[in-house]
Amino acid sequence: MKTRSILLKSRPQGMPTEDNFEFKEEELPDLQQDELLLRSLYVSVDPYMRGRMSDAKSYVAPYKLNEPIAGGVVAEVVESRNGRYKAGDVVLGNLPWQTYSISEGKGLSPLDPHLAPLSYHLGILGMPGMTAYCGLMYIGEPKEGETVVVSGAAGAVGTVVGQIAKLKGCRVVGIAGSDDKIDYLKSELGFDEAINYKTTSNMREALTTACPGGVDIYFDNVGGEISDAVYSLLNKFARIAVCGQIALYNATSLPTGPRVEPILLKMSALMKGFIVSDYAARFPEAATELANWLKAGKLQYEEHILEGFDQLPQAFFGLFRGENTGKLLVKVADYNTN
Amino acid sequence: MKTRSILLKSRPQGMPTEDNFEFKEEELPDLQQDELLLRSLYVSVDPYMRGRMSDAKSYVAPYKLNEPIAGGVVAEVVESRNGRYKAGDVVLGNLPWQTYSISEGKGLSPLDPHLAPLSYHLGILGMPGMTAYCGLMYIGEPKEGETVVVSGAAGAVGTVVGQIAKLKGCRVVGIAGSDDKIDYLKSELGFDEAINYKTTSNMREALTTACPGGVDIYFDNVGGEISDAVYSLLNKFARIAVCGQIALYNATSLPTGPRVEPILLKMSALMKGFIVSDYAARFPEAATELANWLKAGKLQYEEHILEGFDQLPQAFFGLFRGENTGKLLVKVADYNTN
Repeated sequence: MKTRSILLKSRPQGMPTEDNFEFKEEELPDLQQDELLLRSLYVSVDPYMRGRMSDAKSYVAPYKLNEPIAGGVVAEVVESRNGRYKAGDVVLGNLPWQTYSISEGKGLSPLDPHLAPLSYHLGILGMPGMTAYCGLMYIGEPKEGETVVVSGAAGAVGTVVGQIAKLKGCRVVGIAGSDDKIDYLKSELGFDEAINYKTTSNMREALTTACPGGVDIYFDNVGGEISDAVYSLLNKFARIAVCGQIALYNATSLPTGPRVEPILLKMSALMKGFIVSDYAARFPEAATELANWLKAGKLQYEEHILEGFDQLPQAFFGLFRGENTGKLLVKVADYNTN
Repeated sequence: MKTRSILLKSRPQGMPTEDNFEFKEEELPDLQQDELLLRSLYVSVDPYMRGRMSDAKSYVAPYKLNEPIAGGVVAEVVESRNGRYKAGDVVLGNLPWQTYSISEGKGLSPLDPHLAPLSYHLGILGMPGMTAYCGLMYIGEPKEGETVVVSGAAGAVGTVVGQIAKLKGCRVVGIAGSDDKIDYLKSELGFDEAINYKTTSNMREALTTACPGGVDIYFDNVGGEISDAVYSLLNKFARIAVCGQIALYNATSLPTGPRVEPILLKMSALMKGFIVSDYAARFPEAATELANWLKAGKLQYEEHILEGFDQLPQAFFGLFRGENTGKLLVKVADYNTN
């Protein structure tokens, strides 16, 4: 069986480029006992992957040079020599960017293909959904009537954060980077206000108008100057969930800015960084509540799906240009097309 | 009855100077029904007062110009027209910097003069002690074997933080500004290591040596570059209690520095600002444990007492020059000397 792979050829300096990636085709070896042959169906493209392309110490190990990029993938079992899986099963796992791959089954989760569209397991029922739920609920602890600001609001995490906050009775203000996104957040997802940071010259003023009662919870996906503007409006006992810092990921030197400690001190505010796996023990609780809301039609969920394995690098670059509304995915193959 | 007062004559720009204060003598009016005449015995001098001298929005209202500075004072009741107090009683309150003052009794707490030296109620059994206990225990949540770093380690709060952390089985590293303080922390208070930031050219290197297992809890009294050095050593799930930012209090423009959010994100770390009154509901629990440790000889407590009402401005300036080891106080009068 031939597979195509996308390798990390060199580590990006600043914004990633095509030169950092290499396509390769190779023959997969025969399956050994306990191994599975997997066909990739949907491949997730996420901002955190930028961090793994650097060799700086981080919360996940860096990708190795000349080895495949890896991330969230929904795959179909094509052939199995593992008693736990049979051909036709669908699994979710952290898998290489390959059209086909071989796994020993470790770290794979079986998926029910009838529960929801398969791609949802890379989004609202997967890592981004868990990230949104856990960060908002366990760090933000939203209370009815509070004001929640979310940056990167139109992304895979932000869209879910805002909708949960609305379900919890909060005023929700989103920050995103295009008028289409702003429109989507307000008219489709029910955000109370949304601000296009690319066309707003004075973010602090715009936020002051959008948050007349100040900010109680800030769910931060972007960092940098957008966050500085939000900090100036924090209320006493505000909570900040630091989920992502996409504005800083491509920085080539240590980012500096106004110190946040005096504001946290003045407002007795809490700021907490997290990665979704910190809350693994609470995923079942989170998944149940999300699935119930989806079933009841209380959550909207949008995907931005590019077709074809070759689109993966472009999809990844697009993340940093703010091109996606909703969860960004690449569809590599159809399910059950043997 | 004549009283002497110290008024805020002008708001400091940067470091406070004598020009910001004015001494005044005046006659107090006769007591009205429910009023008390109080003689100040001990007056507390604290870094947070610098904030109240500015008119920027903060967690406590700014002092008014041409009115007395106010803060923690232990005072003796000289005369009472209030049924709750009689002459000879001792009270703790937020009172003006005056030799004598008149109070309606609101916000005063009666003190038992036999429980501990009266001045302790401005320190280890008062606001600084509660600050140390609550910040360390409720934000830091120390666990045996963890490493705790405390800045401003030789101050009223820091000395208590470090000792509690030792009682909780932690490795304790203090940061302070003189060799005498370093010596005191290590030989008298049992700190494992202490670093003189004034004579250490590479704080990060010194901290790396002092904290071979990284930093789990950082109790921050100072902010600025000292904190930046500590941040670089944070462990996964580290907790930072932001108690003070004395390095920044006299700043005349918005302090900037390396952004801390990427580190909090990488380490799933928590940073929380607080003011002691946030934890008022837990003071009884805190006071009981502190008093028990004191009684058992498990806590050392040092005071830095200047004698005489006129010393108050100089005492305050000394705070920012790092002159005090232990709780800084001014003794204004002896107890029970009518």
